[in-house]
Amino acid sequence: MLTAYGYSTSGNCWKVKTILELTGHAFKWVEINSNAGETRTQKFLALNPNGKIPIVELDNGEVITESNAILLHFAQGTRFLPPPGLARTRVAEWLFFEQYSHEPYIAVGRQLVSFLGGKEKNAARLPEIWERGHKALKVMETRLAAHKYLAGDSLSIADIALYAYTHRAGEGDFDLTPYPGLRAWLARVAAEPGIVSMQPARTAVS
Amino acid sequence: MLTAYGYSTSGNCWKVKTILELTGHAFKWVEINSNAGETRTQKFLALNPNGKIPIVELDNGEVITESNAILLHFAQGTRFLPPPGLARTRVAEWLFFEQYSHEPYIAVGRQLVSFLGGKEKNAARLPEIWERGHKALKVMETRLAAHKYLAGDSLSIADIALYAYTHRAGEGDFDLTPYPGLRAWLARVAAEPGIVSMQPARTAVS
Repeated sequence: MLTAYGYSTSGNCWKVKTILELTGHAFKWVEINSNAGETRTQKFLALNPNGKIPIVELDNGEVITESNAILLHFAQGTRFLPPPGLARTRVAEWLFFEQYSHEPYIAVGRQLVSFLGGKEKNAARLPEIWERGHKALKVMETRLAAHKYLAGDSLSIADIALYAYTHRAGEGDFDLTPYPGLRAWLARVAAEPGIVSMQPARTAVS
Repeated sequence: MLTAYGYSTSGNCWKVKTILELTGHAFKWVEINSNAGETRTQKFLALNPNGKIPIVELDNGEVITESNAILLHFAQGTRFLPPPGLARTRVAEWLFFEQYSHEPYIAVGRQLVSFLGGKEKNAARLPEIWERGHKALKVMETRLAAHKYLAGDSLSIADIALYAYTHRAGEGDFDLTPYPGLRAWLARVAAEPGIVSMQPARTAVS
């Protein structure tokens, strides 16, 4: 059986749990608290030298890292990843956008506000994070104002990757009121069979 | 004919030029200086709402964004991207590693040291960037100490994506001496047919 290692309040880990469930894979979940240093142990670094969750260990012992590579791996051949060509490339664009232009602000803002000390303690870093996070939300709104899904006409791993932290953006004090297309998309994805909301931040510090 | 928009001293843009040449695509190159605000014009934002280079405009007017999505798009069906399965997933892992754990430090360090004011002006930001950049280089060394290429046994877009900024890491004051496997890999990739070094940083400020 597959073993997924992750932290239940992490959006990157939520992606993995969600794609495994949507594609009907049985798996064992091993909870790893990255905020408590559990990704920096010798044992974990032997699984992923980059010291990051989520990872998935296959039956043969091979380990897959990087949440969006895991999405691509398990979505292959399913309705969540279109065949090669421009349709698949549109999915890939959103996956890289998520890791470079979205997660470092939407996820990190949430991490600082709700897990690592709150707004006062992180007052120096948060304004830039909020500014760049809103820039990413605006890019999503540009697409979602006129389309039901981020890539193509149905749910794909692009939506799964972006839904992960966006549906908890409020925990980073991101106000989604200015983004009606994005809010409609959040409701649409939430209504899809097999989409279960991520566990809320455990410590509301601010 | 394809039109690629990019900045010749950007590693992300170098990736695009390289894959188009390796796969035999004719293209027109439009130079866009992102350091001079040319990605923030209304005209450019109409092509990419995220305001980033590189982008590729196809014959039918469709625009592809995100350097690593562009690599995946043009490598499809070539020797630079393995067929679906674990071999392809290994490539995807490195592409996401590059954008999340490598580029924000190796490329941004180079940008600050060689383009945006130099070491003194950026003294507050650089130590953390150097620390995280060396962490990424160590992850690469873990693989390259025992393997010729990042993914599989031959050159793939994983190598192209990581070579981009790594072969110019010295322009960000990253000393590669501690990474013999990585240095051997740099020489190996440089010797591959069709790999041409990126234009050096134009302004050595420090």
